[in-house]
Amino acid sequence: MAVSKDKEKIKELLERGVENIYPSRGFLESALKKGKQLTLYTGYDPTGPSLHIGHGITLLKLRQFQELGHKIIMLIGDFTGMIGDPTDKSAARKRLTPVELKKNCTSYKKQASKIISFSGQNAAQLKYNNKWLGKMSFADVVELASNFTVQRLLERDMFQKRVKDGKPVYLHEFLYPIMQGYDSVAMDVDGEVGGNDQTFNMLAGRTLMKSLKGKEKFVVTGKLLTDTSGDKMGKTTGNMIAFSDSADEMFGKVMSWTDAMIVPGFELCTTVPMVDIKDIESELKSGMNPRDAKLRLAIAITSLFSSKKDADAAHKNFLSTFQKGNVPDDMPEFKFKKKSIGILDLLVESSLASSKSEARRVVQQGGVQVSGKKVSDINQTISISKEGVVVQKGKRHFVRVKKS
Amino acid sequence: MAVSKDKEKIKELLERGVENIYPSRGFLESALKKGKQLTLYTGYDPTGPSLHIGHGITLLKLRQFQELGHKIIMLIGDFTGMIGDPTDKSAARKRLTPVELKKNCTSYKKQASKIISFSGQNAAQLKYNNKWLGKMSFADVVELASNFTVQRLLERDMFQKRVKDGKPVYLHEFLYPIMQGYDSVAMDVDGEVGGNDQTFNMLAGRTLMKSLKGKEKFVVTGKLLTDTSGDKMGKTTGNMIAFSDSADEMFGKVMSWTDAMIVPGFELCTTVPMVDIKDIESELKSGMNPRDAKLRLAIAITSLFSSKKDADAAHKNFLSTFQKGNVPDDMPEFKFKKKSIGILDLLVESSLASSKSEARRVVQQGGVQVSGKKVSDINQTISISKEGVVVQKGKRHFVRVKKS
Repeated sequence: MAVSKDKEKIKELLERGVENIYPSRGFLESALKKGKQLTLYTGYDPTGPSLHIGHGITLLKLRQFQELGHKIIMLIGDFTGMIGDPTDKSAARKRLTPVELKKNCTSYKKQASKIISFSGQNAAQLKYNNKWLGKMSFADVVELASNFTVQRLLERDMFQKRVKDGKPVYLHEFLYPIMQGYDSVAMDVDGEVGGNDQTFNMLAGRTLMKSLKGKEKFVVTGKLLTDTSGDKMGKTTGNMIAFSDSADEMFGKVMSWTDAMIVPGFELCTTVPMVDIKDIESELKSGMNPRDAKLRLAIAITSLFSSKKDADAAHKNFLSTFQKGNVPDDMPEFKFKKKSIGILDLLVESSLASSKSEARRVVQQGGVQVSGKKVSDINQTISISKEGVVVQKGKRHFVRVKKS
Repeated sequence: MAVSKDKEKIKELLERGVENIYPSRGFLESALKKGKQLTLYTGYDPTGPSLHIGHGITLLKLRQFQELGHKIIMLIGDFTGMIGDPTDKSAARKRLTPVELKKNCTSYKKQASKIISFSGQNAAQLKYNNKWLGKMSFADVVELASNFTVQRLLERDMFQKRVKDGKPVYLHEFLYPIMQGYDSVAMDVDGEVGGNDQTFNMLAGRTLMKSLKGKEKFVVTGKLLTDTSGDKMGKTTGNMIAFSDSADEMFGKVMSWTDAMIVPGFELCTTVPMVDIKDIESELKSGMNPRDAKLRLAIAITSLFSSKKDADAAHKNFLSTFQKGNVPDDMPEFKFKKKSIGILDLLVESSLASSKSEARRVVQQGGVQVSGKKVSDINQTISISKEGVVVQKGKRHFVRVKKS
């Protein structure tokens, strides 16, 4: 398959959602414009049961390379997953067992095939890093480790922070960038794509490629989509859109995003052309209702991660529920052992309120309904049946509470 | 073989040359007095071609355990040697090749058998840590590493110093205490004996034994013999007495020790009873000529590390050479490409003087002879033949200088 040198596509690849390119944008641009077929990859840590929208962002970048005719690899970090990447966690992460890992890996390819193609002439390759890392001896580890200084590893922001906070940095966490770095060497790639939170590990790979292969690996770091709280949207913080979510869940989650996330959401999580996104951005500035832009975003994202058909149904379902005040078909269920419970405890235990004081405030403001009736007494006791009662907070939040 | 509970011997074991005992002296004392047979070891890094007197000190401590009936292990760090222990070096040490290592290991057992017994009912065991460390996988290393924090490893004095001096601490050096620590676990020992410069690594073994086996490993750290410059006497600084030295060399080296080293030399490097050493100490305080004490020390050390017969011959040779001004049979040789060389350069290049200014001073003080004739002109040029000329500095320092 010939490699395309389409200028517009190369420009989009180099710019859309990109934060930084190492060693330089010019380096990668010149390689792309020469029409040389490049091999590049992104690593996916299989520590969650499903890919999430953060993974979707890097898959979309891989897709741009694939569409130009370059070779892409989806690398499953089944070996590294046993350790747990310390990235973005202030405490050392619990390590997964091989069984847990295997389970998580199984669904990743199927999910990723929504975005990248695993068939045809230029099929994406799926690789597992246990294949080479699992064969390495202590002596090999020592050899690799000798390419890094402790001082350089300690420069990593998150380690600095832990040291400052008096929290432990475990030695095995220092081995993580080494492993991840060796993936590049083992696959002998030209480059790597990843979120900007992976910059440190990806640059470790550059170091090793230079030391062991004398090769300048390029690294493309992507912007992260931050959620309403300003945190990275990711599986470790429990606020992500997962590939395994139903279309209704995806749709509802996008609709709950803040207005500031609309434009970045289009840029990072969809294939809507940049020129159209610029138009939406202008329209928003000229007074377009953000809710309408968000509906378009929810349709685009749900179409991509689920299907066009599901997206349309979810759209319809969303409008009927939230415009007419109907109760949705699907909602989280909570089971209680007790026959009855105070309304404030009920709100907190079913996660509709984060604290008793928040629960009290919502009830007092008239924002809580049980079985369709407003509850205004903060001391009211709610009877719980086996069939369940529907508890609603505000317009969008529903849970079904049952006796277990 | 029954274990002896001899109180005097236990006292000597716990005190002679001992700097510290972990978790406490009482812990080890109580185990020894119960008559329980203990298994303990010392690790020897095979990075030099010969054992030296520093190794002799720990071998003498192992011998005390062996004489009481405990099981001792001489562990050759053939695996760790490939990395190079960073101990006591301000720069990362060059790693040895497997061939170099093998060569060094070969002579160690023979040399050690001068001190400990490898035969009989309670023979010392010789082990090699490549047997278990060589089998470890990357995943095993990760598992072990998770027992240590980077902060704890950085506390080690020598790493602190390097960080402070802006010198690199390579990541593989952090793996060294981990490996050395695992030796204790793999051999399932009760304790370890080593020089106080190995305290950090030996305590890493305590940490692992506690984590992985729930066992309180005891650690006996020994005092180091410091040489005339105050440095540890060891193979890495090139000033040691080696087991491979001739008796004459050993004898001469001891005689060149400073007076302050006499009593520690007796305590650490000989089997002369402590009560006799106390006597020598008293006599020195009452005006005994230190040279006479040093002669006794040289005889004791040379008898131990070589043989009584060789020690007597070396003693005789030493007296005849240095009392009558004779030139010794054996002396270092230096080869030069040039036909002639200035006296000051000659002294520096043959290591008889550490600098030109020292060379100048010694010549001016009349302390230099070439072929038996005093040289008093600092500008004198010395002709160098293929047969060689003998250059003497002071009474004791001789080199033979030849044209190559």
